[in-house]
Amino acid sequence: MPTLRIALAQVNSTVGDIAGNAATVHGWVRRAAEQQAHVVLFPEMMLTGYPVEDLTFRESFVSASRNHLERLAADLDHDGLGGIAAVVGYLDADGPARLGADAAAERGPRDALALLFGGRVVARYYKHHLPNYGVFDEDRYFVAGDTLQIVRLNGVDVALTVCEDIWQPGGPFAVAGLAEVGLVVSINASPYELNKDDVRLPLVRRRGAEARAAVAYVNMVGGQDELVFDGDSMVVAADGTLVGRAAQFDEQLLVTDLDLPSASSDRTGDFGEMHVARLTLDASFPAPAPPVPATLAERLGDDEEVWNALVVGLRDYVRKNGFRSAVFGLSGGIDSAVVAAIAVDALGADRVVGVSMPSGYSSEHSKDDAADLARRTGLDYRVEPIQPMVDSYLSQLKLDGLAVENLQARVRGVLLMALSNQEGHLVLTTGNKSELAVGYSTLYGDSVGGYNPIKDVWKTRVWQLARWRNAAALERGEVEPIPANSIEKPPSAELRPGQLDTDSLPDYHVLDAVLTGYVDTDQGRDDLVAAGHDPQLVDRVLRMVDVAEYKRRQSAPGTKISFKAFGRDRRLPITNRFREGV
Amino acid sequence: MPTLRIALAQVNSTVGDIAGNAATVHGWVRRAAEQQAHVVLFPEMMLTGYPVEDLTFRESFVSASRNHLERLAADLDHDGLGGIAAVVGYLDADGPARLGADAAAERGPRDALALLFGGRVVARYYKHHLPNYGVFDEDRYFVAGDTLQIVRLNGVDVALTVCEDIWQPGGPFAVAGLAEVGLVVSINASPYELNKDDVRLPLVRRRGAEARAAVAYVNMVGGQDELVFDGDSMVVAADGTLVGRAAQFDEQLLVTDLDLPSASSDRTGDFGEMHVARLTLDASFPAPAPPVPATLAERLGDDEEVWNALVVGLRDYVRKNGFRSAVFGLSGGIDSAVVAAIAVDALGADRVVGVSMPSGYSSEHSKDDAADLARRTGLDYRVEPIQPMVDSYLSQLKLDGLAVENLQARVRGVLLMALSNQEGHLVLTTGNKSELAVGYSTLYGDSVGGYNPIKDVWKTRVWQLARWRNAAALERGEVEPIPANSIEKPPSAELRPGQLDTDSLPDYHVLDAVLTGYVDTDQGRDDLVAAGHDPQLVDRVLRMVDVAEYKRRQSAPGTKISFKAFGRDRRLPITNRFREGV
Repeated sequence: MPTLRIALAQVNSTVGDIAGNAATVHGWVRRAAEQQAHVVLFPEMMLTGYPVEDLTFRESFVSASRNHLERLAADLDHDGLGGIAAVVGYLDADGPARLGADAAAERGPRDALALLFGGRVVARYYKHHLPNYGVFDEDRYFVAGDTLQIVRLNGVDVALTVCEDIWQPGGPFAVAGLAEVGLVVSINASPYELNKDDVRLPLVRRRGAEARAAVAYVNMVGGQDELVFDGDSMVVAADGTLVGRAAQFDEQLLVTDLDLPSASSDRTGDFGEMHVARLTLDASFPAPAPPVPATLAERLGDDEEVWNALVVGLRDYVRKNGFRSAVFGLSGGIDSAVVAAIAVDALGADRVVGVSMPSGYSSEHSKDDAADLARRTGLDYRVEPIQPMVDSYLSQLKLDGLAVENLQARVRGVLLMALSNQEGHLVLTTGNKSELAVGYSTLYGDSVGGYNPIKDVWKTRVWQLARWRNAAALERGEVEPIPANSIEKPPSAELRPGQLDTDSLPDYHVLDAVLTGYVDTDQGRDDLVAAGHDPQLVDRVLRMVDVAEYKRRQSAPGTKISFKAFGRDRRLPITNRFREGV
Repeated sequence: MPTLRIALAQVNSTVGDIAGNAATVHGWVRRAAEQQAHVVLFPEMMLTGYPVEDLTFRESFVSASRNHLERLAADLDHDGLGGIAAVVGYLDADGPARLGADAAAERGPRDALALLFGGRVVARYYKHHLPNYGVFDEDRYFVAGDTLQIVRLNGVDVALTVCEDIWQPGGPFAVAGLAEVGLVVSINASPYELNKDDVRLPLVRRRGAEARAAVAYVNMVGGQDELVFDGDSMVVAADGTLVGRAAQFDEQLLVTDLDLPSASSDRTGDFGEMHVARLTLDASFPAPAPPVPATLAERLGDDEEVWNALVVGLRDYVRKNGFRSAVFGLSGGIDSAVVAAIAVDALGADRVVGVSMPSGYSSEHSKDDAADLARRTGLDYRVEPIQPMVDSYLSQLKLDGLAVENLQARVRGVLLMALSNQEGHLVLTTGNKSELAVGYSTLYGDSVGGYNPIKDVWKTRVWQLARWRNAAALERGEVEPIPANSIEKPPSAELRPGQLDTDSLPDYHVLDAVLTGYVDTDQGRDDLVAAGHDPQLVDRVLRMVDVAEYKRRQSAPGTKISFKAFGRDRRLPITNRFREGV
């Protein structure tokens, strides 16, 4: 049985930065070579970043991806790294870059994989299964491949696949089984969802069984716009044994020695659903010595997992967009307190500016709690009272009620944007998912900002995360970042005297239970009532979601709320004219 | 040869308002019956509106669509209208409403067509070709049908198809030809693009030739969110003769008498690409007398066509979202002047509020031009100086340069939103497509608003539209709505003394030529230079588009500029890290 030393490069790629991503590949191939790996695997679309979206449609971008790939192969060889087989995801095209009306297009842009060896691109594979649900729109951008590429490496047959190929039965894994390979390589850009790691291992095992082969599964890590990739790369033997597993949310080179069966078939051509192409790499790899010990990284708990995703997402958004620091309104409430703690974990306290912007309605405890958080975390704390600006509007316009409440939030928004323009910070928004769903926020007010770390987090989980983060600090002997009072006190927007969230909303535990059903799992009014929720409450909450959508229509043209970050693309329904129960 | 009297109901449907849409169908079936029509055709997704987007995923919404359809059939019969065959688009499902990872799903939501007759749904057809490009995302929502339904009506075989079925070769029209039908019905929700009417007639002729049959093509009319449907319904005989054509942008019942061949085939089952199902409607229609005269509506010129699209889009957005009036900043410049004229045409002068918000940098001619437009159009004109509010910020924060420029725009945004909250108007944004593309605007400033009538209009066409609208007024003996000075003067944002757009931007004619290539037709740097543009200019413009994307990242999370309204979904590329020419 030949042994292959396989290195999984679980790394962070940046959309559009082809040169930078190529440099990343170069550096990690060197690290893999230093560990005597025979093969090193990089994630899906490593060279271009993922998702490239409409960049796919630019011929110049496709050319850049293809050209950099060739250059990378040559550069690796030039630097003495041509003897390691490197698998790299990239963007290719064998037809026009923009797909149009012709649904039956057989050529066009490809979500592609290349095998680099000896200074050349020796094999290519085009992704077969294209996902077009949730956060994925790949039918819009890519043409599906129909040829499974098998490469004989050191006497072992290795089938090459990309991401969604492993999520669906049939296709490449089934064909790999018929073609009698020893190993299936799966390169991924698989976004984080809560508990997705609990799904991945059984999935990899199931598909390995379908292919009757070992599976090397490498995933991207890091934040890209609305997505966070959590890594969780792994190697599973043909019998289902977990041989190695990388940590979540960190860059890592996972090196594994795998004993694999010698190649036994040369059959090519038509395998029903796909074609099979084969080639043999003219290389014999020395048996690696000494063997590497197995790495099996521990899984994180739910709250730690979410916290890491939020921190990594924010850190990469700031870095990849060229910012150095962030600013936001620090009210003393739980939402901005949790955003502050995330920002300090992501960027360091010296790059985080929290601005207390009290009005005449702000309570003393709010100002105290904001100052307390600032002391605990060490962030740059400022106080900018808003009453003079609010009064300047009120003395000119005749406003009352909601218009006055919204005015205060908008003055704060203008203030934060002015600081952003003057000092270069990214503005963070601090509204949670529950508030966003029911529209309990002010357009162009507290909704101002380029990134909202908690927009996908229900209010009840915001509290849970605060408690988890404080407990983690205690465990490490550090100061708890979030004041207990911010966690314990009843939430209030403080836009009129004595206001409480419960004046306008049900208790958040009750609210979140209904919203989760309505938004996350598409339940209708009757489903929710059948699930035991009070009918009047359900009607009230659904009505709020409907009105929120209506309010958003006063916002930027075409803006829809999209809860995309954690793998589920749940647009709130446009139901201001559709009443549940009709 | 039997004669069929066919009525095409080119009507306006509203997403989500199933009961209202059913009532519309009822009313127009009655009108068709009064004209002794045998068959009346309604657009795609008539009952639910189009596009329903994520409403598709709600089982309760699918049920509502199905139930209302059955009820509609019964109600029509109850009111003596069961003897006319009504073809109605609706949402159906024969599987789970939410499509997920299983790309091979054979059951699920359907973009469906129903034939109502004698109080019942007698036939259904599921759309075969699902578009997933431009403004369409149908692979995300629907499962494709594979059975062509043919109905024998008064001895004529009629094949039933939906929208995209006519845009692609092969599929339903080819199968209809093999099945030897006399007429193909095509129901559509086909959004407006410039000159799309020039494409439609040859398309209908081409597909009619493929089916060797007459084609009855009915399209929706009216605005729905970012889309505008332009109608342009038509009937084309088997020999390619245009028998009847409806007007653009207006509701209309187009009634046509068609002599059609008697049915000649009974073959059902497998036709290669699709199955064929047949049924005979137990009805013989009396020959209609007297024959209806042919209607052939005249085509509009380009500028008139665009103007109509903008007016209809705004009017329906306001109405369908429950607003009664609109407010916006009236600066005296060309963009807000054109928006004002569109708004007055769409809503009437008494529902339009234009607010002049001069600062210390506003010129006298700007204030004069704004007042002049107000006098010419009769809109509700107000003056709200912003300097006191601007000063209230400046006396608290230390700001200079761009931060001060942006501050002025944001104070105006807060002012407009306060008026919106207090008085209930929809806020209109007035930035043109050229400005948006290069980011020549202020986030949360002049970008504030729920609807932007000219976001898809390049600056050079804004001027052209202004001239066309004034000329049209002269022709009708009316006052020209737009002051000549707003058209002729050099554009300026007036955010600092003596500022002109040309300080920051190339001349708009030069700029638009490059932007059109880069944004509308995906040309890269080298393509644009090869097309004769100055290389330095190209680099400068592309750099501006890149930076604009970067600036938008300071905006709401997940916000992307999407030029969707006119059929092309051109997201500006995220190129702040991809440099053309790499």
